[in-house]
Amino acid sequence: MSEYPKQDHNRVRRVPKRAHYERESVYEVLDDGYVAHVGFAMEGRPFVIPMLYGREEDTIFLHASTKSRFYKDLAEGLPVCLTVTHIDGIVLARSAFHHSMNYRSVVAHGHCRPVNIEERERALKVFTEKLVPGRWDECRPVTEKEIEVTGVLAFTMEAASAKIRTGGPSDDAEDYALPIWAGVVPLVLQKDAPIPDEQMTGDYPLPESVKNLDVPD
Amino acid sequence: MSEYPKQDHNRVRRVPKRAHYERESVYEVLDDGYVAHVGFAMEGRPFVIPMLYGREEDTIFLHASTKSRFYKDLAEGLPVCLTVTHIDGIVLARSAFHHSMNYRSVVAHGHCRPVNIEERERALKVFTEKLVPGRWDECRPVTEKEIEVTGVLAFTMEAASAKIRTGGPSDDAEDYALPIWAGVVPLVLQKDAPIPDEQMTGDYPLPESVKNLDVPD
Repeated sequence: MSEYPKQDHNRVRRVPKRAHYERESVYEVLDDGYVAHVGFAMEGRPFVIPMLYGREEDTIFLHASTKSRFYKDLAEGLPVCLTVTHIDGIVLARSAFHHSMNYRSVVAHGHCRPVNIEERERALKVFTEKLVPGRWDECRPVTEKEIEVTGVLAFTMEAASAKIRTGGPSDDAEDYALPIWAGVVPLVLQKDAPIPDEQMTGDYPLPESVKNLDVPD
Repeated sequence: MSEYPKQDHNRVRRVPKRAHYERESVYEVLDDGYVAHVGFAMEGRPFVIPMLYGREEDTIFLHASTKSRFYKDLAEGLPVCLTVTHIDGIVLARSAFHHSMNYRSVVAHGHCRPVNIEERERALKVFTEKLVPGRWDECRPVTEKEIEVTGVLAFTMEAASAKIRTGGPSDDAEDYALPIWAGVVPLVLQKDAPIPDEQMTGDYPLPESVKNLDVPD
């Protein structure tokens, strides 16, 4: 699969052996997340806003509101940096200095465009299906009015890279002999038992989409 | 407890009922996270970099490298926006449109300063103790040389706000009668059973600090 061009702003310089530029690696990290941190600058002041997203190839749909203060500027093509990070573990070394975390992150640079009304229903489907695959067909479809009031931005990844750390601690050679426990405490974003809405008007069974998330009872 | 001043750049405008400006709420969200998304702009281009952090009052220590391309500019006081987000659940509504997520986030604006060598050991302790409380005293102490080569930035929160969504879906009044399951699938960042480093040179017991994390066997 193709790679993103290595440009000055997406090249990983610190610990470059953890860097990945293939689209496949970048997509994998993105598809495992729910919230992207969207960064841009206005009048010299930076902003980092968490936003729900869904991906299609190199396009990331961002769920916004046309009423948000940033919508217009983003839609007009302000430069954007979009970052997604998963934390996978706490890395305990023998030395305080080498404590670390396992993580997977993507940093992508590009621009947004507004998603026009014809394309917006598809983008809303991408959002819903990302949250719970199969859910789109189970629920009340979107209305024309809902499509109209929803602000969706399409961010195009022009340059991106993934950075991934896995495995155990890297201690200094002479420290391995120390009688100190070292290892990793894995961190996993776990789904808990579904909580039915108290306002349900009937005893509706758990839908297939939620069962397929492999949730506990 | 005191509140952050509501300024133009930290006032929550979308769904303001979810906003919190008290320091206590902001601290609580920050203290529950491991990675902050640090945003700034250089030559008009935004960057959002995930960084490990630890908090002391309104100061957030950021673990950097003096060799990173951004260290110097950040240390010199480039405006910074620091954002931390936790995702707590997938919210399934009766309508596709009202699907959402439960989350807790903090957006903080401020500036960084470099942490001088006298203060740096304390900052390193804050990082380690944040990852695993009690770990600092169990492991090989930091050396003078390690303190020297570590880059630590101290970010001061000048204005901040938290935004929190909890609870079930908010459907349109007429949709509550629909025979569609609605509710929340909670998401929890769970600690898994510790994985001992294969390079341990003895059969060292799990330390108190790790046991206190309430990890499974």
